[in-house]
Amino acid sequence: MAPGEEFETTTLNKVRQVAEAAHYDRETVHAVLDAGLVCQVALIDQDQPIIVPMTYGRSGDTLYLHGARKARIVKALAEHPKACAHVTLVDGIVIARSTFNSSMNYRSVTVFGRPTLIEDPDEKLAALEIISEHLVPGRWHEVRPSLDREVKMTGVIRFEIESASAKVAAGPPEDEDEDYQSAVWAGVLPVSLQTGTLQPDPALPSEIDPSTVCLTLEDKTY
Amino acid sequence: MAPGEEFETTTLNKVRQVAEAAHYDRETVHAVLDAGLVCQVALIDQDQPIIVPMTYGRSGDTLYLHGARKARIVKALAEHPKACAHVTLVDGIVIARSTFNSSMNYRSVTVFGRPTLIEDPDEKLAALEIISEHLVPGRWHEVRPSLDREVKMTGVIRFEIESASAKVAAGPPEDEDEDYQSAVWAGVLPVSLQTGTLQPDPALPSEIDPSTVCLTLEDKTY
Repeated sequence: MAPGEEFETTTLNKVRQVAEAAHYDRETVHAVLDAGLVCQVALIDQDQPIIVPMTYGRSGDTLYLHGARKARIVKALAEHPKACAHVTLVDGIVIARSTFNSSMNYRSVTVFGRPTLIEDPDEKLAALEIISEHLVPGRWHEVRPSLDREVKMTGVIRFEIESASAKVAAGPPEDEDEDYQSAVWAGVLPVSLQTGTLQPDPALPSEIDPSTVCLTLEDKTY
Repeated sequence: MAPGEEFETTTLNKVRQVAEAAHYDRETVHAVLDAGLVCQVALIDQDQPIIVPMTYGRSGDTLYLHGARKARIVKALAEHPKACAHVTLVDGIVIARSTFNSSMNYRSVTVFGRPTLIEDPDEKLAALEIISEHLVPGRWHEVRPSLDREVKMTGVIRFEIESASAKVAAGPPEDEDEDYQSAVWAGVLPVSLQTGTLQPDPALPSEIDPSTVCLTLEDKTY
């Protein structure tokens, strides 16, 4: 893909519905990808679309996806290489004065490409670090290094983003003119993905406290 | 589909990875669907898998999906009727003593079927009520009835669940035997989708308070 600030708008990524919420700039696409914890990957397996949830990390316009070595996803991609990865972050329920105008506030991103399995062990290890750091930044260097056999057993997929679009819906309801005289309440119920308090493994000796790396993830909003 | 407690296990819905986390019983499949706010729907559009996030509601083994009348999804389904709908609910980041054993706690469900556009206005209205009640229970009867033209403008999809599977991963990390002597902290960081405090529409007269229907959704965990 040629460098630039925007993903090219084609029939593949062009947003048809609520087109005013669409964004094609890398900054927005990358920001939504970076804010998510899990993505959904759609593949075609024997003429059937399937969705697999996967953890991931991003570097530039490349997503790294984490699966298992012999998963259905790997076999399906060999037969039908086109895939789609998606992240939805729900930000609120828009409670309008009519159900017709009620909706959701959200950030979502949909990316297209032809993912491939990474075979090279060094590239795989680098990709695993990116995925791990996406979920728990700083953890990679806090634990023992990965063993060769662990890297071998793990399936890691390189997903070069060929095309992408983001959608961002925010703000209060937009009602019909005549409905603003209604006596019914209207507004937004915020929704967010939040972390709580670290729960130690019951097998953990009581003298081991969580590191700063882990503690900084407490009470965080995605 | 024959009535029964379990969805039949076929090559379509059989979970290959972490098979011990798989559930095929209706109770689990329905519970995960009922707990989600937004689903991802995968379709094939001109040989390309695409994912569309949609709001939904469930009645028995039928999902009702909300889109817009002329959306890409409707055209794509006419050409390739097989589809997949998916819900992921993230419950925690499992922080193990190695990155290899670190993972996510989650509930997910994947359903397969051949969705169709609902044409009958009465069935459409009933489906819209199911979707609305899924998101904001009780709201349907609090606002004015839907207008005929609103029902006409809205695309509603009937998705009979032909096959389904759920996956539930929970609990503390499972580490390699030799790693339990490690001095590093291990455990789970809980993650949940939570609602906050209702934000009134700035255009709302200040004397209108939220109803109990809306208030009961505050500070809720999905």
